[in-house]
Amino acid sequence: MPTTPYTVVGAGNGGKAMAAHLALMGFDVALYNRTADHIHAIAKRGGIELDSNDPNLRGFARLKLVTADIQAAIAHGEIIMVVVPSSAHADIARACAPHLRDGQILLLHPGRTGGAIEVARLLRDAGCRADVTIAETETFLYASRSDGPAQVRIFRIKDAVPLAALPSTRTDMVLEAVKDAFPQYIHGVNVLHTGLNNMGAIFHPALTILNAGRIESTNGDFQFYLDGATPSVARVLEVLDRERVTVAAALGIRARTAQEWLALAYNATGNTLYDAIHNQPGYVGIKAPATLFHRYIFEDIPMSLVPIAALGQRYGVAVSGIDSIIRLACIIHRTDYWRKGRTLERLGIAALSVTELTHFVETGQWE
Amino acid sequence: MPTTPYTVVGAGNGGKAMAAHLALMGFDVALYNRTADHIHAIAKRGGIELDSNDPNLRGFARLKLVTADIQAAIAHGEIIMVVVPSSAHADIARACAPHLRDGQILLLHPGRTGGAIEVARLLRDAGCRADVTIAETETFLYASRSDGPAQVRIFRIKDAVPLAALPSTRTDMVLEAVKDAFPQYIHGVNVLHTGLNNMGAIFHPALTILNAGRIESTNGDFQFYLDGATPSVARVLEVLDRERVTVAAALGIRARTAQEWLALAYNATGNTLYDAIHNQPGYVGIKAPATLFHRYIFEDIPMSLVPIAALGQRYGVAVSGIDSIIRLACIIHRTDYWRKGRTLERLGIAALSVTELTHFVETGQWE
Repeated sequence: MPTTPYTVVGAGNGGKAMAAHLALMGFDVALYNRTADHIHAIAKRGGIELDSNDPNLRGFARLKLVTADIQAAIAHGEIIMVVVPSSAHADIARACAPHLRDGQILLLHPGRTGGAIEVARLLRDAGCRADVTIAETETFLYASRSDGPAQVRIFRIKDAVPLAALPSTRTDMVLEAVKDAFPQYIHGVNVLHTGLNNMGAIFHPALTILNAGRIESTNGDFQFYLDGATPSVARVLEVLDRERVTVAAALGIRARTAQEWLALAYNATGNTLYDAIHNQPGYVGIKAPATLFHRYIFEDIPMSLVPIAALGQRYGVAVSGIDSIIRLACIIHRTDYWRKGRTLERLGIAALSVTELTHFVETGQWE
Repeated sequence: MPTTPYTVVGAGNGGKAMAAHLALMGFDVALYNRTADHIHAIAKRGGIELDSNDPNLRGFARLKLVTADIQAAIAHGEIIMVVVPSSAHADIARACAPHLRDGQILLLHPGRTGGAIEVARLLRDAGCRADVTIAETETFLYASRSDGPAQVRIFRIKDAVPLAALPSTRTDMVLEAVKDAFPQYIHGVNVLHTGLNNMGAIFHPALTILNAGRIESTNGDFQFYLDGATPSVARVLEVLDRERVTVAAALGIRARTAQEWLALAYNATGNTLYDAIHNQPGYVGIKAPATLFHRYIFEDIPMSLVPIAALGQRYGVAVSGIDSIIRLACIIHRTDYWRKGRTLERLGIAALSVTELTHFVETGQWE
């Protein structure tokens, strides 16, 4: 009988999927959401109705606690699953900081790029002295959708998702701690690896920007990948991807290319990225965002492309393609995503050499 | 009875419109095209069938000479009307150089940005000693279409098109020389003004890039301006336009904004560029390019945006929006438009201060 108490932070469709799945597996689960209204229906029913194509993954998932009180939420869990947009990681870190205790694990789903590093820095700055292990996943475990306020549907659970702790010396411990619930997590080397294998960074913003007119004039009424990733658009994705992989190389990391990832994760192959995208059956039917004011820009630009570009600029890799997409996103959203995003200053790593940065993510030590 | 002999260089739909119009007005016209095949039907018939809504602008326009021999073409005209894509200006200049004689006028329709300066430099480099006056227009006089190999249809002749000579001290002389044929040309101050009031530079590439996916997946089956210039896309155009106007300001030039131009040229007004574009009835029905391999990129990027960006970089104006569009165009076309484009080195003006550059365009003197 599972005993580890989990807290799931965030009750979007991802958080609901994770909380419901954990509860159905028999874990004691607290579900936290900042806005109480949003979890009112779940609190009233005492849980979430989970549906899926798998008969073992259906039913009413009773939760131990449904709360908008962060202190109570953090008090409940030994493992804190943070399932919020990465642009909210900083707020969550500041809210959790006073309440964390020794031995807890704070796991970001996913970290995007630099999530664990940013959270570690904010906890330190907030004076958190607890020995908390921060970790992040490379991508989200579930494909899910919310069918109602207290409902969620899981379409798919990925087979293998890399996970890394900060410091990476603790990754095995985290994998062991979550293993009963999530055997799908595998060793992700360290948080630079998980952060630089961020495929959404490559696909989401550029596909959105290079289809900006169409998204806005049709409210996204076309297939995002199949219609949006035309040969020329896919060529831009390839160049951005090459920049990302080169930034990783400058950090001594052999990141997967988008093509390798499509082959590995979806068995989708092809001579070019265009072919591979169009050989990924999972992309069939995925509609474009209905608006340009979408997380593909307001999350993926500051939390994914900005830190990748910042690492490139810091360590001498040209990232002019990525930078072009960032600039156009800034213009379209009338904001400065460089100022709001995960720059190296924001992450607290601007002064580190590559060797020092690697040492930091491996040991958690600054020197 | 008009007597000035004209040579029209280039037998695309623009060159055919101009040659036919001139001939119908009674001028002696030679039409040159590099590829003889392309003018075979015109040569055989001895002229061009011109059609339009204006009864005075219809009929068979008999040409004096239809030739693929540049020497014969240049020998014919006192005024050489160059009606080719600006990316061909350099080739035309080199081809004409050995055959030009004192007193001829070489007029580029239009120059895009830096056309007259580039041609002047190439003639000088080619050892041309003839006292030829180079001039450029700000935009093309006609809206026209080719209905067949020896046919052309003129939809509209603009009321007022700025023209500038290099040096600008000769602008009045050029206006006087073309006045009988073209009273529509007005004084364009100097070639920096005509080059920096290049509106196609702002509209064409960005509208194309920000609708890249749609153009390529539908073969341009949507309205380029009405569907393509959504509020967010128009915001990008506004920012690029502000960069262009700021580059002009750094050269001491008050360029027209795109909104001012829409109001002036088309009486299309609005609070934002988006509104003004959508209040321009002339944009109704204009389809998007059928492919991304279109002059909106392969001409407007190297011949318009590159020189504007280069002037900005040289004289201290941030052009990051324009630069983003250039970079994405380079990726999409797998080429380096900075290398192929009108950089200040290419134009031979890299060493000039603003004062020297102004002096040069006004007097033709380097110091």
